[in-house]
Amino acid sequence: MPTSVEQVSAVMRVCNELKIPVVPYGTGTGLEAGSVSLTDGICLSALSIEGGICEVNEADFDVAVRPSITRKQLNAHIRDTGLFFPVDPGADASLCGMCATSASGTNAVRYGTMKENVRNLEVVLADGSVLHTKGEGVRTRKSAAGYNLTDLFIGSEGTLGIITKAVLKLHPRPQAQAVAMCHFPTVAEAVNSVVETLQVGIPVARIEFLDDVQVAACNAYSHLELPVMPTLAIEFHGQNEAEVSEQAKFLGDICAGNGGSAFEWAVELEQIEKLWTARHNAYYAALAMRTGAVGFTTDVCVPISRLAETIVETRKDLDEMNLKGAIVGHVGDGNFHVILPVFEENEQEMKVVHEFSDRLVRRALQANGTCTGEHGIGVGKIPYLQEEFGPTGIEVMKSIKRTLDPNNIMNPGKIFL
Amino acid sequence: MPTSVEQVSAVMRVCNELKIPVVPYGTGTGLEAGSVSLTDGICLSALSIEGGICEVNEADFDVAVRPSITRKQLNAHIRDTGLFFPVDPGADASLCGMCATSASGTNAVRYGTMKENVRNLEVVLADGSVLHTKGEGVRTRKSAAGYNLTDLFIGSEGTLGIITKAVLKLHPRPQAQAVAMCHFPTVAEAVNSVVETLQVGIPVARIEFLDDVQVAACNAYSHLELPVMPTLAIEFHGQNEAEVSEQAKFLGDICAGNGGSAFEWAVELEQIEKLWTARHNAYYAALAMRTGAVGFTTDVCVPISRLAETIVETRKDLDEMNLKGAIVGHVGDGNFHVILPVFEENEQEMKVVHEFSDRLVRRALQANGTCTGEHGIGVGKIPYLQEEFGPTGIEVMKSIKRTLDPNNIMNPGKIFL
Repeated sequence: MPTSVEQVSAVMRVCNELKIPVVPYGTGTGLEAGSVSLTDGICLSALSIEGGICEVNEADFDVAVRPSITRKQLNAHIRDTGLFFPVDPGADASLCGMCATSASGTNAVRYGTMKENVRNLEVVLADGSVLHTKGEGVRTRKSAAGYNLTDLFIGSEGTLGIITKAVLKLHPRPQAQAVAMCHFPTVAEAVNSVVETLQVGIPVARIEFLDDVQVAACNAYSHLELPVMPTLAIEFHGQNEAEVSEQAKFLGDICAGNGGSAFEWAVELEQIEKLWTARHNAYYAALAMRTGAVGFTTDVCVPISRLAETIVETRKDLDEMNLKGAIVGHVGDGNFHVILPVFEENEQEMKVVHEFSDRLVRRALQANGTCTGEHGIGVGKIPYLQEEFGPTGIEVMKSIKRTLDPNNIMNPGKIFL
Repeated sequence: MPTSVEQVSAVMRVCNELKIPVVPYGTGTGLEAGSVSLTDGICLSALSIEGGICEVNEADFDVAVRPSITRKQLNAHIRDTGLFFPVDPGADASLCGMCATSASGTNAVRYGTMKENVRNLEVVLADGSVLHTKGEGVRTRKSAAGYNLTDLFIGSEGTLGIITKAVLKLHPRPQAQAVAMCHFPTVAEAVNSVVETLQVGIPVARIEFLDDVQVAACNAYSHLELPVMPTLAIEFHGQNEAEVSEQAKFLGDICAGNGGSAFEWAVELEQIEKLWTARHNAYYAALAMRTGAVGFTTDVCVPISRLAETIVETRKDLDEMNLKGAIVGHVGDGNFHVILPVFEENEQEMKVVHEFSDRLVRRALQANGTCTGEHGIGVGKIPYLQEEFGPTGIEVMKSIKRTLDPNNIMNPGKIFL
């Protein structure tokens, strides 16, 4: 539990010399076991580094944070500035950890993922040297200076270095917000509404999909009475109510044209929270379909033109394989999750679950997609990464890894073997 | 002049074996001599690769192009789809070349730079192997799979490989457009208007600054009668005229609050073109201040909070050093250029010009800025890159270079020595 960057650096120098594996640990909220120790070695908690929120530059819309700061803590701290940090994975994760896993969430469709929201990183490398990925202190909106090291570390899952500070981009908090829910006869009609929405450039803040099983689970868990149909939950952000209404009117027309129901609609914060309850609690609602079960979550992402067929075939698989699973997705980005409540001690069941997951990933790859939209590779998706990138891509990644970490001490066994 | 990726690959295999330097050449429109050959070796024109526009995926807002396609050709080709590619450096550059130099332009403030607009790259590496930076065929909006190789090649200026195909993100073409010009008593008041505009989240498509010298040069060159004052040229994009008017009204109030003139205003395409003439021809107008001169251009970028002081001090330097120079900038991004009409054969003059440029870059670096917002490092900015990144950053870049190009045959002598 080092308290300073100097201490992290000193620890790394020793570990590198003695070839001791180091697993960086943040809030431990990642879903792909990125912070699990697979070998002997040390676990280095980055949360103990002192400093917290180092600086807020309101006029430049940026902020520098140490690993101890989570996304909710940051947003609470800057509430009075009129700015906010948009990236919102399910957990209240460490922001530096979110850099390491290339996190995103429900409003990436408008505000981007971590990759689009980081200006600079401070990283302690395997040999203990301290790298500023954009040069020390640089925090411009853009740059064409040298190799793009910042984005090399975003999504590196602790295998290239320990992120000890992140300079993040902030956004103006919307002056007006509204939320709508819309129910569709079929998955295809819901997804087509999303495509048309993006096509006309309506800047929706969130556009989330819940399939009928997920809606039924949410009804049961959150005591709601939503129609048990494929559903879109949409959030609008704007400078004023007129702008938000305009966006909603446009989108209402698009949804109606695709057989969608009239909007259930909310503009007051309290109502908005209530409507989002179903989406926020989707994971727990899905788990509650089987008492005592734990969650197994998939994370494929495909081009939007392939999304409807991918979801339909996934549902077919679930039904044919007799698996209970709910589908929920960041459909504006083509990313969706299947949440399966499972009993891990049941080997036969887990075999079927893994077969289902395997079919799903292969289907996504065949549809020009990726095995992970936002959770990362961690341990379980190593074989899929190889399939997705092929030997040349994997060899380039490995060669970078060998260069920056010749003793393979940084989170070994993650991303690739 | 290879006609296929296989030929590029075969050429690279031979050159790598024989250690022959290879300089990739696109449209040759870069401003930092990235495509100039410094040593013996071959110049490989990527423009001859056949294929042009390989595929357009309208529903997914993406397109795949070979190096022969320029940004204007692409936009002409997809005119009927309702989509467009926004990144617009001054020249009609090759899109693959724009990837290599991490280009941006006037509307990056809304649509981002190349970094934000590429989904996948095909790259022939130094050893002839063919890399797909996101895996072959993958073209999702987001991904958390493995190291972010795409962004490693964006801005690598031909030193890591030859970009032979780019999968680019497209955007819905705005249904309504408007342009406004506004004149300010001081630079600070113009820049403050930009900060406030971003703060309230008005999604301006372009917000360009011209200083009084630039305005005077434009008046002379384009036969205009603009007030010779610090000026903002602003473009609004929206789904309809109401939205555009709303944005303009907001911004008009902000400018008025900072001492700005009433908007000169245009909504018809022809009028818009006329108002943008001043900005489009800024470079040639600045050159015309001295008959027979050629252009010397700077490219610093700073956080917006430091922009006004940086521009004011730069103007002071120009005046005190008795240099003719016009200032024009993508102020929404904190990026501005000084265009100096120079006589390169005048050694004494060039010494002063370089001293001016040096002071400017150092000032930008001290203001948490970068030596290049969008033109790249090429040859001339190598010392500044070292200053900006320090020894650790440069060593990380060099180690990646050595790994991917152990014989240093890819565009040697660019970015670093």
